Amino acid sequence: MKLKAKYIDMDTGELTALLHVNDSTEIGVREQDRIKLKHENETVTAIVHTTERYLKPGEVGLLGKAFQFIGPEVGEVLEVMATGKPESVEYIRKKMDGLELSTQEIRTLVNDICEHNLSQVELSAYVTALHINGMNIRETVDLTQAMVETGETIEFDRGPVFDFHSVGGVPGNKVTLLVVPIVAAAGLLIPKTSSRAISSAAGTADIVEVFANVNFDAKKLKSIAESVGGIMAWGGGLNLAPADDIIIRVEYPLGVDPHAQLLASVMSKKKAVGADYLLVDIPMGLGTKVPTMEMAKQYAHDFIELGDKLGMRVECAITYGGQPVGRAIGPALEAREAIAILEGSKSPNSVIEKTLTLAGILLEMGGIPRGYDRAREILESGKALQKFREMVKAQGGNGDIKSEDIKIGKFKAEVLAKKSGYLGSIMNKQLVKIARAAGSPKDKGAGLIIFKKAGSKVDAGEPLYTIYADNENKLNEAVSLAKKLEPMVVEGMVLARMPGITRFQV
Amino acid sequence: MKLKAKYIDMDTGELTALLHVNDSTEIGVREQDRIKLKHENETVTAIVHTTERYLKPGEVGLLGKAFQFIGPEVGEVLEVMATGKPESVEYIRKKMDGLELSTQEIRTLVNDICEHNLSQVELSAYVTALHINGMNIRETVDLTQAMVETGETIEFDRGPVFDFHSVGGVPGNKVTLLVVPIVAAAGLLIPKTSSRAISSAAGTADIVEVFANVNFDAKKLKSIAESVGGIMAWGGGLNLAPADDIIIRVEYPLGVDPHAQLLASVMSKKKAVGADYLLVDIPMGLGTKVPTMEMAKQYAHDFIELGDKLGMRVECAITYGGQPVGRAIGPALEAREAIAILEGSKSPNSVIEKTLTLAGILLEMGGIPRGYDRAREILESGKALQKFREMVKAQGGNGDIKSEDIKIGKFKAEVLAKKSGYLGSIMNKQLVKIARAAGSPKDKGAGLIIFKKAGSKVDAGEPLYTIYADNENKLNEAVSLAKKLEPMVVEGMVLARMPGITRFQV
Repeated sequence: MKLKAKYIDMDTGELTALLHVNDSTEIGVREQDRIKLKHENETVTAIVHTTERYLKPGEVGLLGKAFQFIGPEVGEVLEVMATGKPESVEYIRKKMDGLELSTQEIRTLVNDICEHNLSQVELSAYVTALHINGMNIRETVDLTQAMVETGETIEFDRGPVFDFHSVGGVPGNKVTLLVVPIVAAAGLLIPKTSSRAISSAAGTADIVEVFANVNFDAKKLKSIAESVGGIMAWGGGLNLAPADDIIIRVEYPLGVDPHAQLLASVMSKKKAVGADYLLVDIPMGLGTKVPTMEMAKQYAHDFIELGDKLGMRVECAITYGGQPVGRAIGPALEAREAIAILEGSKSPNSVIEKTLTLAGILLEMGGIPRGYDRAREILESGKALQKFREMVKAQGGNGDIKSEDIKIGKFKAEVLAKKSGYLGSIMNKQLVKIARAAGSPKDKGAGLIIFKKAGSKVDAGEPLYTIYADNENKLNEAVSLAKKLEPMVVEGMVLARMPGITRFQV
Repeated sequence: MKLKAKYIDMDTGELTALLHVNDSTEIGVREQDRIKLKHENETVTAIVHTTERYLKPGEVGLLGKAFQFIGPEVGEVLEVMATGKPESVEYIRKKMDGLELSTQEIRTLVNDICEHNLSQVELSAYVTALHINGMNIRETVDLTQAMVETGETIEFDRGPVFDFHSVGGVPGNKVTLLVVPIVAAAGLLIPKTSSRAISSAAGTADIVEVFANVNFDAKKLKSIAESVGGIMAWGGGLNLAPADDIIIRVEYPLGVDPHAQLLASVMSKKKAVGADYLLVDIPMGLGTKVPTMEMAKQYAHDFIELGDKLGMRVECAITYGGQPVGRAIGPALEAREAIAILEGSKSPNSVIEKTLTLAGILLEMGGIPRGYDRAREILESGKALQKFREMVKAQGGNGDIKSEDIKIGKFKAEVLAKKSGYLGSIMNKQLVKIARAAGSPKDKGAGLIIFKKAGSKVDAGEPLYTIYADNENKLNEAVSLAKKLEPMVVEGMVLARMPGITRFQV
């Protein structure tokens, strides 16, 4: 059927075409079916939406991306015909029915995801089926491999390549800024790519961006890492395992992260940069992605097994994620806290302890004995600071950077304890909400500094935490949210009184 | 935040708003999050899409329905703020995790579906989770009730109300046109609502529409049914269980129809018209929705139990659906075949036999003994024809309607047997594809007449079936599809030759 092209100034993340119901009936397609559109030598397959209102019969509306893809003039005639679903939809059905997918089926599926051949409805069914029915280790290996193969890969001229990943979910986890320079200062190659915050207050890339560039292409990343020994880059600037970003867009609204997909997401990005040795930090605790020890051990086991099948030596550290790591939350505040430790600060202890343990494991994986002690020497001798500054300079920042140079929010408000007692649990998710209300991660100076950790003795009127913001409105919003959420509750020592048994005489 | 309204000439089935990424970051929302938009006293909640390209910062794009909903002028300023997900998303998560939903949770979920509060991604997750994890009978009852309550209901002044439903999936199943007048002629009230074809060649509503109106509001439906004793209406013209249509839009692209949803879909529509007695026809066989006897019995059991909990007496008939019912497929051709039987035609036997059995069960449910014999008397005496004509007249058609008045496709082509032998299996789905290629159900005259059924002896050159079409192009398309698909294959009596064992002497 021949239809006139109409441009629709919109993009839905799918390749979408709008047909008048008369034409869709004529062509024999319904909402969510597919049509093939042809213009000169270009063809594109689009998901059908129908309307009686927004088009006249004889027109086909093409949304932004689909239009540009085949590039007609507005009003030009396109050849439009019905076409079938991609095979992958059948494989999603198989997974819905609890069946195992073959290597080839997984490869086709990942390819269709990358090519934007699947609709939001189909992707959501994939994520849901994976959440419920899971994948075995063979399928997970295939999924990881397919995700690597459909994206960019980087090969380093010198090796082996060391890498580090934190599963995330714990606020204030700025240890990457310390682990990477320590490991690089020990002479190991560690080209670390990180993500930006999705729902957290600051991803490592958001923090590093406070004082250096993070957005590099593969060639530049390779040259910096090889000359300095390490880099702290934003993974999203490269095209590593692009299927992952498309899948995340559907996982996010459902609030799920299926086990096999989480494993493949991490491992595909590490495999794509050619990691030979990988340490995975699994923060465990309420409010993280991994609430129980049992679950943490399952993840550790699966990361290690998956690494083995992919030819990567993996170790895991299950760490305490029940409350923030260190005192600072938010890009600039976390940067400042991390750099101060490189400069010699002895606190917060939780950050230093976690850093040295993780860096130590990586050093031992690289054949350096007594890793923890060696990591401490590197940190305390100032070699880590020196390596950090080399990296910052190579990434376009100031090679003489000092912690006090980092600008933090101009506006601040202290939250005080209402009564004396002991600090009960700290609610990570509530703290993150407050930091985000204050502007974090977009406003670099926004965030929190926490003065008390769980179990601390607190006197009425003592500050619990300070909220920082780059603008006053957001500070006010964060303060009113803080009043509502109460993320840090002071309790008396008697947490609950259980009434005894009363006997009656009738 | 205040943003200028921009109108986007498109509709996605969701309430969608497009934000520039700068503004979405500022508001603190991402793709698939929700915002509340306020204009004067109207507010609407929309799903966020983001762009860097199709809007300028400071603008908010509203798709057709969302725009009309709050009705600003283009360029007018709207108040835009972030808002949370509806609770239902949590209940979908619960079902994804295999948990039982409470009555109140199901009610909230169905309500959010009807109010268009859920995105395509969320609806797809619901359907997928339901397909995999199912619902118990208590949940299914609650789902059905909630679907009834969120739509229109009809109460008849005289009762009891009899009803009939076919689960579908078998082509040529025009028996409703015969069952309804027989049951009504016996003095029982049968206000039958039917659907249009989705993927079949003709739904009952498509067939009836050949010779009468099918689109009535509740008041008119009630008055016709009460005065004539029966009606054959299109259910889609009413607002019965509207959640169903929204859910179907997601089931369709995934090619699934979760058990609990299918049950609730049928039963909610019957409950909404106040059915007291319901007969469910479950066509069983390859290529139908119910391929095995075991599955058919499970459906029957669940329909009966669900009916019991809803205060409805349900019986089920598992019928043979392995090949078309009768000879005609397509709206006008099926109408003609059915009316000819009312006029006294003794064939096709499969249609008459199925009709009398089903109508007989309904009569017996209504307290009329020897239902099959009574149904035959009503049919053979011409009382069914008379009642049918009363109904046609009340529905705005010709009260003297004759089968030969029905116009069938002007263009036709016969498909001949290539060789002699016996007809093997008939592939329902392929026949439907050919009928649809010929224009069915939109072109009323299009369809097929089948001359041979499975097991028939066939001579080379004998006609197997005739394709009818209202226009020549479509006839040609259907013919070339028929050549490709070969839905009726003639085989010799020896279907396969199994080679014996050959012994070698070395």
